[in-house]
Amino acid sequence: MKNCIEKAKKLNIAIATVKNSNHYGIAGYYAMMALKEDMIGISLTNSQPLVAPTYGKSAVIGTNPISFAAPSGRQYPFVLDMATSVVPIGRIKVYDEKKEKIPAGWGIDDDGNVTEDPKKVKSGGPGALMPLGGTDIMRGYKGYGLGIMVEILCAVLSGGSHLTQVGFPHMPKICDVSHFFMAVNVNAFRPVIDFKKQIDEMITLLKESPKATGKDRIFIAGEKEFENVKYNEKHGVPVIKPVVEELISNGKRLGIPFELSPIK
Amino acid sequence: MKNCIEKAKKLNIAIATVKNSNHYGIAGYYAMMALKEDMIGISLTNSQPLVAPTYGKSAVIGTNPISFAAPSGRQYPFVLDMATSVVPIGRIKVYDEKKEKIPAGWGIDDDGNVTEDPKKVKSGGPGALMPLGGTDIMRGYKGYGLGIMVEILCAVLSGGSHLTQVGFPHMPKICDVSHFFMAVNVNAFRPVIDFKKQIDEMITLLKESPKATGKDRIFIAGEKEFENVKYNEKHGVPVIKPVVEELISNGKRLGIPFELSPIK
Repeated sequence: MKNCIEKAKKLNIAIATVKNSNHYGIAGYYAMMALKEDMIGISLTNSQPLVAPTYGKSAVIGTNPISFAAPSGRQYPFVLDMATSVVPIGRIKVYDEKKEKIPAGWGIDDDGNVTEDPKKVKSGGPGALMPLGGTDIMRGYKGYGLGIMVEILCAVLSGGSHLTQVGFPHMPKICDVSHFFMAVNVNAFRPVIDFKKQIDEMITLLKESPKATGKDRIFIAGEKEFENVKYNEKHGVPVIKPVVEELISNGKRLGIPFELSPIK
Repeated sequence: MKNCIEKAKKLNIAIATVKNSNHYGIAGYYAMMALKEDMIGISLTNSQPLVAPTYGKSAVIGTNPISFAAPSGRQYPFVLDMATSVVPIGRIKVYDEKKEKIPAGWGIDDDGNVTEDPKKVKSGGPGALMPLGGTDIMRGYKGYGLGIMVEILCAVLSGGSHLTQVGFPHMPKICDVSHFFMAVNVNAFRPVIDFKKQIDEMITLLKESPKATGKDRIFIAGEKEFENVKYNEKHGVPVIKPVVEELISNGKRLGIPFELSPIK
């Protein structure tokens, strides 16, 4: 993404692809790198197969996220960072641990039927996540199409591994995922100050539009996360107990002591 | 898009934006123009407001389609062409005419509640279409985010009108929509022949993956449409009766005779 931004400074638009990579963390991290250069940033990656195509029953597509970041003026930047499945696999695990049913439309069992049992939508086993939209009638094939678009821009454009070639079969060596990065220099299209002003106006229009009964606020992509960052910078980053326990246990194994430090 | 493709021949990547435009027809038409030049084509447009943001109740966003086309070898090209709402407004009208309920999750009434009554999801009136995904629990905010991404790339990057500024208020002058076109020269990344071979392999892998119970085929984005073209080129383009009647009535008004010609 750094390369991409540097090239876009000279050439206005740049794309970089990466192959034979591992999990790259948060897709939005890379897209957001473009913001401080007054650029639009895009970051995509394929991932290990967890999603079934529409009318399929096996996990052959990754949750292939799309991240898109656009600079703003007084408002928070617009930062979309979304899996192209309805939910990521971690969400299914949370429901399984809570011993709760998952909503119909998140996942399918090993016959390809929609299931409310989180255990039937297991990572690596039979069953799979559903693409954004869910069922056919709710246009899940659009989410499936977006997932394949990401697969093409990441894996096929770079010549990396695709679909079921990615992930677990290669572990513990590498996941063999591919990424796509893009930077667009706003100033090549119009003065950045005008672009930012219009982003602010658009966000204001959205936020001031009429609310559904029982709702008092309309959110913009990335807004909740920016508010969390602000809160956490003051109050510390909350970590759930199982993660703390895992950190302590890994620390013991590696001889690294665990210390609780007060927030500075 | 022609400009875009010509520029991409020299520069490998090109983006063109358009503002103060009218309905541009089929988004996929422009994306597909890139295919014969062995390029990836992208075409986006904003449109008159018909979709409510998540937690909103008014139509403030267009159905803002995304089209993405990638060249293939022996398989049909991959051509995604999708509204970022669950369904377009025309689909609601079809259910209204058939006096049938719409599936829960396609549209909301004027309180912002999901409704199954197509009359409550009217174009220009209260009520609105829902973004891809539908409800909050089914991650409709992702479709909402994609719709705004399209709005930014079309309206904000070009300096055109956005959201509720688009469409009906300006009629019958111009709709004031904005478009985004992009062409990516595959050969700049890897030999086109290798790219096409991998697209074919990926499509084969998808099509040969296990089918859900009761399904015998997995489709690829654009495949049904390519098959329709093939069929229609032989058998003629089917036109529904109300359209024929409208053509006859408009013909009479304008003094243009209506003739039924046999298929050549």
